[in-house]
Amino acid sequence: MQRTAGVEIERLIQLLAKLPGLGPRSARRAALHLIKNREKLLAPLSLAMAEAKDKVTECSECGNVDTIDPCTICSDTRRDRAILCVVEEVGDLWALERAGAWTGLYHVLGGTLSAMEGIRPEDLAINRLIERAAAAGMREVVLATNATVEGQTTAHYITECLKGLGLSTSRLAHGVPVGGELDYLDEGTLTAAMRARRPF
Amino acid sequence: MQRTAGVEIERLIQLLAKLPGLGPRSARRAALHLIKNREKLLAPLSLAMAEAKDKVTECSECGNVDTIDPCTICSDTRRDRAILCVVEEVGDLWALERAGAWTGLYHVLGGTLSAMEGIRPEDLAINRLIERAAAAGMREVVLATNATVEGQTTAHYITECLKGLGLSTSRLAHGVPVGGELDYLDEGTLTAAMRARRPF
Repeated sequence: MQRTAGVEIERLIQLLAKLPGLGPRSARRAALHLIKNREKLLAPLSLAMAEAKDKVTECSECGNVDTIDPCTICSDTRRDRAILCVVEEVGDLWALERAGAWTGLYHVLGGTLSAMEGIRPEDLAINRLIERAAAAGMREVVLATNATVEGQTTAHYITECLKGLGLSTSRLAHGVPVGGELDYLDEGTLTAAMRARRPF
Repeated sequence: MQRTAGVEIERLIQLLAKLPGLGPRSARRAALHLIKNREKLLAPLSLAMAEAKDKVTECSECGNVDTIDPCTICSDTRRDRAILCVVEEVGDLWALERAGAWTGLYHVLGGTLSAMEGIRPEDLAINRLIERAAAAGMREVVLATNATVEGQTTAHYITECLKGLGLSTSRLAHGVPVGGELDYLDEGTLTAAMRARRPF
């Protein structure tokens, strides 16, 4: 790009383009939108980012991100502390919370095992998970890793690690998404849904 | 969304979701990405936004946004000051600059005339355009508004305003986009391209 505007604007565009979901073209559009809405959007967003930078921290219990440690979920006394849901990333935790699908605690692994990318058990929060799972009163661990090869490999590895702790382990059900059309689903999902069919 | 993280994070997500190209889902993903890359992305982006907020201004000559006024283009002495290209928005100016398609000056209207949305000539930078076009030495005005009904209506209105100033006015050519496939083009474009066919 030729130098058509100040370096400050070009720097803003370059940084916005690093956000997931924004390419160079949409980053330029976003920058212009911010500049046009200086008081209503640029100023508050700049402030929100500065605040997030200063205040947001990783929960030392579960790995969630929050402005308090332990996080809002870990310090919520209404949560069932005997059941633990293991997820790959914070985004997965948020997704389950939006669904209101879980009333227990969480544990964020920070990724999946991957021989290809050289990610070993010690690179994930697995030791910390074993510690938490071994605590008195723990009853069940749900392995809610993604239904991908890496996610399932990681879940299997973890169930092996947890053997002997006297816990029950489980995984999310496979099946037809609610509202999903059979015609658009892959064969693996359809086969799994058929095998796990339930009486009416 | 249930309260699963600090208000600061939720505020960040809400503001990011107001950017063009980001919905609520991608705003959450962007917020997590920012938090994960605090030093490499969140801190510099927060700073870049604060700087843009403080320094970016609208060029009093052409309406471009820049950190200096007159803007980089208007103060570039190598530019041909006798030719003026009229665009709807700053993004259009940037697009022409990226293409290296224009060596003259620009004039940003700030939109198009629209009876539907109640946008009248006095809501756009048309009076300022007439002033600039009437200045001594001005030779040509290119109306590079979009090839939409609103854009073309606005261009027609402006050519009427400029009559009697002794300038030549022109508009961008219609035709097949470079690299474009005929099969995917609309009939209007094909008809225009055929009418304006050029000898080999």
